[in-house]
Amino acid sequence: MAQQRAEETRWRILEAAAACFGHGGYDATGVAEICAQAGVSKGAFYHHFPSKHAVFVELLNGWLGGLDDELATGRAVGGTAPEWLLTMASLVRPVFRAAEGQVPIFLEFLTQAVRDPAIWQATIAPYQRYRAFFAGVIRKGIAEGTLRPVEPDVAAQVIVSLAVGMVLQGVLDPQGADWPRAAEEGVRMLLEGLGAESKSGGDS
Amino acid sequence: MAQQRAEETRWRILEAAAACFGHGGYDATGVAEICAQAGVSKGAFYHHFPSKHAVFVELLNGWLGGLDDELATGRAVGGTAPEWLLTMASLVRPVFRAAEGQVPIFLEFLTQAVRDPAIWQATIAPYQRYRAFFAGVIRKGIAEGTLRPVEPDVAAQVIVSLAVGMVLQGVLDPQGADWPRAAEEGVRMLLEGLGAESKSGGDS
Repeated sequence: MAQQRAEETRWRILEAAAACFGHGGYDATGVAEICAQAGVSKGAFYHHFPSKHAVFVELLNGWLGGLDDELATGRAVGGTAPEWLLTMASLVRPVFRAAEGQVPIFLEFLTQAVRDPAIWQATIAPYQRYRAFFAGVIRKGIAEGTLRPVEPDVAAQVIVSLAVGMVLQGVLDPQGADWPRAAEEGVRMLLEGLGAESKSGGDS
Repeated sequence: MAQQRAEETRWRILEAAAACFGHGGYDATGVAEICAQAGVSKGAFYHHFPSKHAVFVELLNGWLGGLDDELATGRAVGGTAPEWLLTMASLVRPVFRAAEGQVPIFLEFLTQAVRDPAIWQATIAPYQRYRAFFAGVIRKGIAEGTLRPVEPDVAAQVIVSLAVGMVLQGVLDPQGADWPRAAEEGVRMLLEGLGAESKSGGDS
């Protein structure tokens, strides 16, 4: 019970910090402000985090963590590599929803990354992880004969670029296109280019 | 002669402002600081720009302006739509070079865009322009029979997403991949998916 309350407090601090950093910027935000926003005492804050910087790093490391779970789930379902890729494209809808309202804190990550090499590394880590993940999917497709023998790393770079560009435009310009549909069509086009028979699930 | 000097002064102010906004942020930068960095008087500054905000908007409107010229040049060369697209992919190298060092001012555009709808509009305008441009290229390809009858707008969304995602990752993680090569391979994969015979120039 006490542990549950501690978890809740920790979570409230993280949520409040994300709002403060996103709104006013990391530098302009003090621990007092985060505590006020979270409705916790400074004592409670320092019980959970040694510093403002530690909260920032925790937010950064947790950033996109949910997406890793989604990808793992997609992979666990089984099926051929093209089927996985189409499933993952359909996951874009929740990703877009999750990305809404996250622009300010994402910008703050990048702003701090420009100044601090450790933050920079943590900021680019998810992209590297996704590229490695999709290279694995492509390798599987080549092994099972559903994809032609392209270079897995290059194909993965293309897939992650497509996803990153879609999400960025989708967040910046939500009215500019039907982004989830564009994501699915993009994967279909790529799959045809990768030599898979993408006849499965022709209309979404 | 006087006009040339005036142009030089204007350009020095813009360059200095980009450096100041990128380094310290828009809010923390004053006209005095821009003048000091540019080595011009306040009188000269206000001769060219009514306000700090006007300089910011001018930088934003000029942002990516060079790329429009590159695209127009690529189109003027002629050839089929797939040939154009491959030519444009090869332009990615200079785009990556131009993007280096531009991360801070790009972040400042986005940070201000989150607060100001007019800045937001100006920030997303280039993406909308590029999508319209590539939709035109796709339409031409369909008309000439080098591309199959896909939806031009959706294909253009995919192409621009690929480019945006490549440039973003290339700037954030230059060592993470051979990005210019990935861009060319990505366009080749897409072209196969779009039904073009991409036999032209098989090895780059």
